[in-house]
Amino acid sequence: MARRKKIYEGKAKILYEGPEPGTLVQYFKDDATAFNAEKKAVIEGKGVLNNRLSEFFMTGLTQIGIPTHFIKRLNMREQLIRQVEIIPLEVIVRNFAAGTMAKRLGMEEGTALPRPIVEFSYKDDSLGDPLVPEEYIIAFGWASQQDMDDIVSLALRVNDWMSGVMYGVGIKLIDFKIEIGRVWDNEFPRLMLADEISPDSCRLWDIETGQKLDKDVFRRDLGNLTDAYTEVAKRLGVMPSNVTHRPNKPTLIN
Amino acid sequence: MARRKKIYEGKAKILYEGPEPGTLVQYFKDDATAFNAEKKAVIEGKGVLNNRLSEFFMTGLTQIGIPTHFIKRLNMREQLIRQVEIIPLEVIVRNFAAGTMAKRLGMEEGTALPRPIVEFSYKDDSLGDPLVPEEYIIAFGWASQQDMDDIVSLALRVNDWMSGVMYGVGIKLIDFKIEIGRVWDNEFPRLMLADEISPDSCRLWDIETGQKLDKDVFRRDLGNLTDAYTEVAKRLGVMPSNVTHRPNKPTLIN
Repeated sequence: MARRKKIYEGKAKILYEGPEPGTLVQYFKDDATAFNAEKKAVIEGKGVLNNRLSEFFMTGLTQIGIPTHFIKRLNMREQLIRQVEIIPLEVIVRNFAAGTMAKRLGMEEGTALPRPIVEFSYKDDSLGDPLVPEEYIIAFGWASQQDMDDIVSLALRVNDWMSGVMYGVGIKLIDFKIEIGRVWDNEFPRLMLADEISPDSCRLWDIETGQKLDKDVFRRDLGNLTDAYTEVAKRLGVMPSNVTHRPNKPTLIN
Repeated sequence: MARRKKIYEGKAKILYEGPEPGTLVQYFKDDATAFNAEKKAVIEGKGVLNNRLSEFFMTGLTQIGIPTHFIKRLNMREQLIRQVEIIPLEVIVRNFAAGTMAKRLGMEEGTALPRPIVEFSYKDDSLGDPLVPEEYIIAFGWASQQDMDDIVSLALRVNDWMSGVMYGVGIKLIDFKIEIGRVWDNEFPRLMLADEISPDSCRLWDIETGQKLDKDVFRRDLGNLTDAYTEVAKRLGVMPSNVTHRPNKPTLIN
């Protein structure tokens, strides 16, 4: 069997060369990491769920006119995506205080923010993805002022839509992280949503009970992570017919 | 029993004087009308469903920072709202061609629009709520340019959020109508979402089957309207425990 070229391996995903120039295959692993990979585990079925959920969110966002890297899901663990230059930022939108924000500001988790807050971390594992002011981003040339204005608008639209998706199924969208990629169409740069949207990258609390349905279940040892993600998938009607374990080995396309 | 003062009676709702200055009680009738009230019927339970659904949507929109007139639901058919000056416009947001747009432009219903389109009708039953360009609105002083910019932004945010709510439960948001009210806080005007959001004011199609779950069921004699609205309420988990008929008579508060 021909081996595909591995382009990049991250903590939860692998990128392979795609079938056409400008495409990649994004493979969702079952690996879970937290606290900058100090805590690690293999969570059976997580990759399958995130592949389906990210497909579901990216498809819906495309329908409201948000450009995304998503082309199509290929199988249980893989999706075809556009190859983009990733802007080295984690774009975080917060509706309620939680995680690092709650810790750094001494706020109680779940406190409603006066309005949604968009913040940025510089993507660098060796530095622990430090929070950076927009001023740094412009000064160091990671993105232009125009890029940042576009990114904030895009992030707030994603927030409105995702808040709606979750509200409709009884879940509160506390915060989420997205990544943005740049593609060049005839020398014109165009930004699009990249990476993934899944319970790995969102904080999701049940509206009634406050139960956590996201990666905090793993970070804080609150129970079975697959059960939490399955609950989200079920409510959204995207429960895969089969989330059982497959050998953690990419399939080959072409 | 003391009689409350009726402020206004429309086709589907009645407004009564509220318990505090600046408040009103909005009563949802079971009456359905279409084609500028040429077609009429009483649809048992519609008012109860719309009261609950409008509460559900207004509450969620408030949580993402959209100002609304909604204060609280009082009972099965009534909600307490802020008294506002209604801007005499129907603000319509369309994602797919349908209804009058499809007819006027000879488009097939369900055709995706290149982007969401916001349009305005002048609220006047005797004229049949005619479509008006923004230019008319400014020239006749129905709203200022600043108002219109704010209204378009608000309408597009409502569209993103509502599209998300519906997508999460397998429904396509084809279009919807909102109304905007003005309140004066210390002589400063402030705009807010008014009237209602319900299947009376939205077009909602099942994503899988295309089945209509909105007032077109009544307009076009496609089946039982209460069943359609109940389906929407059920999917959103806001199914009232009791949608049976109550005497079509407002309850008294205070």
